[in-house]
Amino acid sequence: MAVIRKKTGNFLEDFRVGQVFRHKGGRTVNEGLLAHFTDFSMTTNPLHKNRRYAQAYGFEGLVAPPGLVMAVAFSQTVEDISENARANLEYIDMRFGAPVHVGDTIEVETTVLGVTPSSRNPDRGVVHVQSLGSKQTGELVIAYQRKVQVFKSDPSREVSAGQLEPKPVEIEPFVPPYRDRTAYAELSHLSNDDTYFEDFTPGDTIEHSRGRVVTDEHIFLTGMLDNTAQVHCNQTMIDRDPARYLGGRLVVYGGIPFALCLGLSCPDVGDNSPCDVVYKTGRHTAPIFTGDTVFAATEIVAKRDYPGRSDLGLLEVTLRGHKHDRSDEGEKPVEIFYLERALAVKRRSHYL
Amino acid sequence: MAVIRKKTGNFLEDFRVGQVFRHKGGRTVNEGLLAHFTDFSMTTNPLHKNRRYAQAYGFEGLVAPPGLVMAVAFSQTVEDISENARANLEYIDMRFGAPVHVGDTIEVETTVLGVTPSSRNPDRGVVHVQSLGSKQTGELVIAYQRKVQVFKSDPSREVSAGQLEPKPVEIEPFVPPYRDRTAYAELSHLSNDDTYFEDFTPGDTIEHSRGRVVTDEHIFLTGMLDNTAQVHCNQTMIDRDPARYLGGRLVVYGGIPFALCLGLSCPDVGDNSPCDVVYKTGRHTAPIFTGDTVFAATEIVAKRDYPGRSDLGLLEVTLRGHKHDRSDEGEKPVEIFYLERALAVKRRSHYL
Amino acid sequence: MAVIRKKTGNFLEDFRVGQVFRHKGGRTVNEGLLAHFTDFSMTTNPLHKNRRYAQAYGFEGLVAPPGLVMAVAFSQTVEDISENARANLEYIDMRFGAPVHVGDTIEVETTVLGVTPSSRNPDRGVVHVQSLGSKQTGELVIAYQRKVQVFKSDPSREVSAGQLEPKPVEIEPFVPPYRDRTAYAELSHLSNDDTYFEDFTPGDTIEHSRGRVVTDEHIFLTGMLDNTAQVHCNQTMIDRDPARYLGGRLVVYGGIPFALCLGLSCPDVGDNSPCDVVYKTGRHTAPIFTGDTVFAATEIVAKRDYPGRSDLGLLEVTLRGHKHDRSDEGEKPVEIFYLERALAVKRRSHYL
Repeated sequence: MAVIRKKTGNFLEDFRVGQVFRHKGGRTVNEGLLAHFTDFSMTTNPLHKNRRYAQAYGFEGLVAPPGLVMAVAFSQTVEDISENARANLEYIDMRFGAPVHVGDTIEVETTVLGVTPSSRNPDRGVVHVQSLGSKQTGELVIAYQRKVQVFKSDPSREVSAGQLEPKPVEIEPFVPPYRDRTAYAELSHLSNDDTYFEDFTPGDTIEHSRGRVVTDEHIFLTGMLDNTAQVHCNQTMIDRDPARYLGGRLVVYGGIPFALCLGLSCPDVGDNSPCDVVYKTGRHTAPIFTGDTVFAATEIVAKRDYPGRSDLGLLEVTLRGHKHDRSDEGEKPVEIFYLERALAVKRRSHYL
Repeated sequence: MAVIRKKTGNFLEDFRVGQVFRHKGGRTVNEGLLAHFTDFSMTTNPLHKNRRYAQAYGFEGLVAPPGLVMAVAFSQTVEDISENARANLEYIDMRFGAPVHVGDTIEVETTVLGVTPSSRNPDRGVVHVQSLGSKQTGELVIAYQRKVQVFKSDPSREVSAGQLEPKPVEIEPFVPPYRDRTAYAELSHLSNDDTYFEDFTPGDTIEHSRGRVVTDEHIFLTGMLDNTAQVHCNQTMIDRDPARYLGGRLVVYGGIPFALCLGLSCPDVGDNSPCDVVYKTGRHTAPIFTGDTVFAATEIVAKRDYPGRSDLGLLEVTLRGHKHDRSDEGEKPVEIFYLERALAVKRRSHYL
Repeated sequence: MAVIRKKTGNFLEDFRVGQVFRHKGGRTVNEGLLAHFTDFSMTTNPLHKNRRYAQAYGFEGLVAPPGLVMAVAFSQTVEDISENARANLEYIDMRFGAPVHVGDTIEVETTVLGVTPSSRNPDRGVVHVQSLGSKQTGELVIAYQRKVQVFKSDPSREVSAGQLEPKPVEIEPFVPPYRDRTAYAELSHLSNDDTYFEDFTPGDTIEHSRGRVVTDEHIFLTGMLDNTAQVHCNQTMIDRDPARYLGGRLVVYGGIPFALCLGLSCPDVGDNSPCDVVYKTGRHTAPIFTGDTVFAATEIVAKRDYPGRSDLGLLEVTLRGHKHDRSDEGEKPVEIFYLERALAVKRRSHYL
């Protein structure tokens, strides 16, 4: 007869460079998840909303937005990688592959690339991992690295430090072949008419006009992703030791402002984009909580040809999210999110 | 290099009589949207809940309730028509057509029938529009007019006033052909047994017994409809200028009490109705906010034969919604919604 | 001309021993309901999440978790049986049958087994019922008895007391036939590796590590089940007479902590279980409200062979739920839920 309380997740000293995790669960993107996580984000790209449109552009059906693919793939890694994390430091080289449609099942595996104890704080260190998400066909849907600051369970235990190179990953974003200008033009009223590749000028910054408050819904949304981190949903744990947790409150899971910033920017940047290609780097620069209203802005960094596709261009931008903290002295903007993003954008010359 | 902040939506001076908007987006009614918006409304008609029942009555599958069809079709018009509105004044002659099933995609276009500057307030006026919602087959699913009070962006700008007649619209509600009394009677226990056409008496008022509080969920529900109006979800905007906005709080989108009043009345009025036919006029008579509990009452106005269908009757009613404001002096009822509604109702003689 | 306010639900004096209710509504489990009610519960069994996994184990598709099947079947009985209840006293001999997949429609009928007026309180008594939930194929999916304390509408009215034996019910939980160890082992990384039948020791108690706060979402979740009880959603009713209602607040429907306790225990107990078999008895030992964080613990009671299946074992456990009330004197644990549960569990010898 024993009382058992299982350890969940790994601590810094548990990780070994080169170790591979095949994560539990797996997740079928059903219509409930697609609707919920797409709609809260305020995205306006008809590929995620209008099946007639998605099929006319060559997709099987509604397409999961990149923020959803990222959040599902990320959340499956939480128990093994970051259940005992102090902070998620950086997303690196996040690339998208095969499209995710309703009915597709995403499973994820992760390789530990690096373990680096902190030179200043003996109770923590940085874990650097590479995660690959694939669907039931075997095709990759997402590949990315991330760095996360993880606690040790016992500061005196030895850490097996080290660093590997990331594995080379073959992943190409899927864009259906170009078919017929006439057919596309018939549907062009369903997306904005000023967000074609020709419409962007490097150096411009677009302040997206809409904001969206985050409510307690974040707890459900995070559970819907199978993200098990307790800092998002265990109020009793926070109440017992508020000083240990950010602001003494349930913090909103980063995938939520991530998807929301992508969504808020969509009518100005992503409405005519068939897919996101790569996020070179990204990070959450401040936490958000229930009641915060999220805003976003996009800086146009560069325009490039899209390899092998004269109908598309590659748009490089920086997406920033922010909120406005209010106090007696007034309102102060706080940056909450930073993402270097490259996306495919349709050329007006071929689609309008 | 420029900082760009796009104008969203139109102001009074931007509208031209006769102008046609083909709205962006479009929306596939998937199982997530159908479940969410149907279930929050407390409707009890098995056509929206029980596929076995819906198919036995001749529908392809679960049928979207009229409140959902209206809310989806309305929300797609918001950016073009009422993003800069002060108030939605009236729904006029709202008619229903082909049924909306899971997988159907609704797209909407709107014609400007009238633009009338206010004689009293130089900063605003009324826009009168006619909207048509169709599905991917080309069939109309809804047609309605509405009047909305819209701000000018610059009070000194000229308004091109005028008024057109509404376009005649051919739209008939779909009721599957009558088949076999025996088969229907086998399923009759699934709906109430006292809401057949014979059970109603003109002049009676039914106070529906249930109430339902509206929570912060309204923000998600509104986003789920692709309704972009910021007064429902941008708390920072409200906090910056509370006096400009109703009650200094996020106001609940009208489609939510609209659907909820239909749902609350359903066990007493709509449980044996295959479809709503027409809403002659409707309006929101007071705003509602998070925390308000919504109630409804239905006055039976008239009973008519249903053209060409001896198994059905046409029931004309007035549906009213209300809430109860509480203060130190006690509780005060406030009417929040008014709808003149005609619906098809099964005759006991043919179905029981 | 009359003002009508219909009675909803039955009072103690309305029940007759032997009476049968065929409940209204019926409910198709669509992807919205499955996603919502499965995901809030924090279950980790891949049968409810990962279609590839569910199909490899012989199911048609994603399987509804037992907490959802119970909550849907229970909620359909509320209007007839417990709309005027004071308290739900006990679940008895709850057995599971055919699996519920997306698209299945659940309908329920209930027989009154007993009516017992209270000897102490003339305004109430106990109703004992037996409910059977089946799906469109005619197969039973759930069968259970419950006892509920119901008010009289008029304490002076006579009650027709009595008690019948429960009807014998033939219901067997469905477990797909055992097929091929090799194929199963390929998917074994998707569930926990320490929750096979061999891993459990009678007498052990497992304190499940995760907790989950319940938010206002409970109002929507309850509506999604078609549960019409007003104590969960009518704030105005509570405000009018707070003393009559538990804590003067909207109380959370019991099906929510029921499903949540099952979910919280899943990574330690249910991750490798193809189905729940029977709940001998269960009860809600304290109410929960918005803001409460729910925890769970499982005591391993006994291990038995599974009749006719050498690949499975039958695990008998006691599942308890609790929350922690906080006051100035500190934190106090409160038991909220008690369930005697038997579930089928895969044997490591056959699946790993």
